[in-house]
Amino acid sequence: MTKGTVAIVGAGLVGCVAALAFEKKGYKVLLFESRPDCRSPDQIAKYSFRSINLAVSARGIETLRFIDDKLAEKVLANVLPMHARMVHDLKGNQVSQDYGLNGEAINSIDRAYLNRLLLDEVDIKNNIKTYYNHKLVASDFEAEGGRVMLTFEHEGKPIIFEVDSLVGADGAYSTTRKHLQRNVRMNFSQDYIDHAYLELYIPPNPASVSNEDKWSISPNHLHIWPRHAFMLIALANLDGSFTSTMFAPWKCFEELDSDDKIIGFFEQNFPDALKLMGKDTILNSFHQNPRGSLVSTKCNPYNLAGKCIIIGDAAHSMVPFYGQGMNCGFEDVRVLINILEKNEFNIQQTYDEYSMTRNKDLLSIIDLSMNNYTEMRHSVVSNTYLLRKKIDGILARVFKNKWLPLYTMVSFRPDIMYSEAVRRETRQKAIVRSIVNLVQNSAIIGLVLIASRLTRSTIISKFLSKWFKR
Amino acid sequence: MTKGTVAIVGAGLVGCVAALAFEKKGYKVLLFESRPDCRSPDQIAKYSFRSINLAVSARGIETLRFIDDKLAEKVLANVLPMHARMVHDLKGNQVSQDYGLNGEAINSIDRAYLNRLLLDEVDIKNNIKTYYNHKLVASDFEAEGGRVMLTFEHEGKPIIFEVDSLVGADGAYSTTRKHLQRNVRMNFSQDYIDHAYLELYIPPNPASVSNEDKWSISPNHLHIWPRHAFMLIALANLDGSFTSTMFAPWKCFEELDSDDKIIGFFEQNFPDALKLMGKDTILNSFHQNPRGSLVSTKCNPYNLAGKCIIIGDAAHSMVPFYGQGMNCGFEDVRVLINILEKNEFNIQQTYDEYSMTRNKDLLSIIDLSMNNYTEMRHSVVSNTYLLRKKIDGILARVFKNKWLPLYTMVSFRPDIMYSEAVRRETRQKAIVRSIVNLVQNSAIIGLVLIASRLTRSTIISKFLSKWFKR
Repeated sequence: MTKGTVAIVGAGLVGCVAALAFEKKGYKVLLFESRPDCRSPDQIAKYSFRSINLAVSARGIETLRFIDDKLAEKVLANVLPMHARMVHDLKGNQVSQDYGLNGEAINSIDRAYLNRLLLDEVDIKNNIKTYYNHKLVASDFEAEGGRVMLTFEHEGKPIIFEVDSLVGADGAYSTTRKHLQRNVRMNFSQDYIDHAYLELYIPPNPASVSNEDKWSISPNHLHIWPRHAFMLIALANLDGSFTSTMFAPWKCFEELDSDDKIIGFFEQNFPDALKLMGKDTILNSFHQNPRGSLVSTKCNPYNLAGKCIIIGDAAHSMVPFYGQGMNCGFEDVRVLINILEKNEFNIQQTYDEYSMTRNKDLLSIIDLSMNNYTEMRHSVVSNTYLLRKKIDGILARVFKNKWLPLYTMVSFRPDIMYSEAVRRETRQKAIVRSIVNLVQNSAIIGLVLIASRLTRSTIISKFLSKWFKR
Repeated sequence: MTKGTVAIVGAGLVGCVAALAFEKKGYKVLLFESRPDCRSPDQIAKYSFRSINLAVSARGIETLRFIDDKLAEKVLANVLPMHARMVHDLKGNQVSQDYGLNGEAINSIDRAYLNRLLLDEVDIKNNIKTYYNHKLVASDFEAEGGRVMLTFEHEGKPIIFEVDSLVGADGAYSTTRKHLQRNVRMNFSQDYIDHAYLELYIPPNPASVSNEDKWSISPNHLHIWPRHAFMLIALANLDGSFTSTMFAPWKCFEELDSDDKIIGFFEQNFPDALKLMGKDTILNSFHQNPRGSLVSTKCNPYNLAGKCIIIGDAAHSMVPFYGQGMNCGFEDVRVLINILEKNEFNIQQTYDEYSMTRNKDLLSIIDLSMNNYTEMRHSVVSNTYLLRKKIDGILARVFKNKWLPLYTMVSFRPDIMYSEAVRRETRQKAIVRSIVNLVQNSAIIGLVLIASRLTRSTIISKFLSKWFKR
């Protein structure tokens, strides 16, 4: 006997992981996707166009392991670990900045590949039934017997399903969320940043003679070209190419309205990337790829009793600058299922507790992601940032687990929740600030002291010597 | 020749005022309303159920005058001016707190009456054509010739209109806003407070013998029963009755789940109101009237080029505690038309400028409204509040126009924009805080001085005497 039937809307990354997790705990799962199966040939062709690379890190991996160790291994067999950022300056110099203290890495992976792998896993499970081309059009949360009645549109006709609970994993523009909002007083906010992104492409090394030199630049780095107001990044693919993304103000994109201006812009700002990509490839991308907008959405609560809950981007879309979007969505599933077990499968209690406790962590990572844009395109080249990174490294080695850089906590420590990471970082930041102030003040006092000695002003000198000794 | 055709969606208060204002400036106006004409007999019956009183104050009146002095007079002929709050305590004592420094008043008016009056005015204008039972279902902002193509549903069939511009005045759950959001990167937030409202009723004085005594309590006050966590308010109607509203946490309403509990609650918290309403009337209201939720929505920008703009609640629904919702919506119209004239009827430039400049004022009044809930249900009976009010009054008399209480600026000074009112209040508050601190410190020092004299501690006494003289 199953524990009940759960409908999951959205067979993307988070939807698949949720399906596998609920199935594992004894639920019957109906997994609905409005689009066709992404493994069908025509869909593969479509997907390859938006190959968007992801970085799977500890929180994502922890969730995969939580479901099945072998699944995690399968995923990790096809990633490219990135241990560090590679910062490219205007002259083409490259400087590596480690991500972790002990060689930890985030892992470049192809979104479509991961989605296909997860769907293959879903297909093996007898208790998960998948419905493609099924678009959710209506949700009745007051159906007879306390059940949820869902209406999908399939091939132009309505089809009705009755389930015990609905899980919405249908992305930033979630239909489930809209249905939920009609039944719940949901606080909601949606904030666009004034920047857009455009996907670019670095082809494999044309001079390659072996498997080792197929990448033109290091495949084990996340490459960044920080230019303060805008930036370029690149993540390696297994075939030797790189998926690159340009982030810049909308205005900047609008001004690049001719081939000459585009090439001129790259010559001026990304001369080495221009060489790696080639003029034609750049122009092709500018002509064919859409400009994407960047939005954060926050909401609360995430549920209606035990009837419906939203997870992943449906509940918290964030800008991509901390590489946590998918990892956080996966973690949603692990957190939810843990609460479910704790509450002995009382689903209403579980959803309520999830909404209450998960919110602070989701707000934290949404804000951290936003702040990290400034870090990536601007701060990584500032002296203050590099000094802070150095101090952080020293303190982390001295105090071990008691002092952890923020990036480490967010990307490599799934046992530390996002909000706890922020809390600890706030305290650490205050301490570092005091240290910096102390160093600066000591330096100033030292200078005044020397100056006063030189000018033989004994009064100042005495006063300062005293003060300095305190 | 007209300046162009403007479609206005929503023939509520703000929609009608916008129609009149655009018509006045030489536009052809099509005014669409999804419901039937609210003046038809069956609609009047429906409306009387939700009689919700409004307070029209200076910003609203200024806009009516901006359109037509006679229109303003017509409206003001049927209001009940309220010069003060009447605070009711638990024992039934009533204390009056003036709203203005010079007897200024806000004016109680019936929403349905005002809407009918505005529609009568709209009907006179040849260049305004009104369409009832027309529900906006689709907006195409890229129609040929730079026009906007709108599809309405009327009697189950689609009807298409082509216009130059669309103005959405269709309330908090605006369809226009939804259409706009598909075409504009609109920042948006929606925040519910954890409180609900319920409409109650105080019948006319049953012992009335003349026109003067038909109200059981003063008709020229806004009555408040502040009880910290919740409150009751009442505004007079012309027929001697009062429309009363209870505001309380949802939990509080949910706990009042039997007639005994409801009456017990009133006996304990609002004994005088219980007498005024009568048990049956209260129970009737609790059984028949819905609990309403209270929401703030903020967004920006408000427009898509010169094609579409949203005004009133569609752009900024606020909680009702500053009595500014409608007044602010009316002001939107005046501000918009002023910018339009300044820009010589360049509609795109006008909408863009409006979005840029109006936002800060709308955010200000949304936040002020939220803060005023605490003031109305809690602060009005605190000593700090009363002291501040007193100090404010004194400083306002001394410094005249240079010092104005916040309430005065918001409710009686349409020449001071909301954000400017907040800016001035922030400065004033800081000054008052210094004064209060000074008074308090002086008092403490004085006390210590006396104590030290009494204990003959000459050292302390000398020190303090010196310090006190500084």
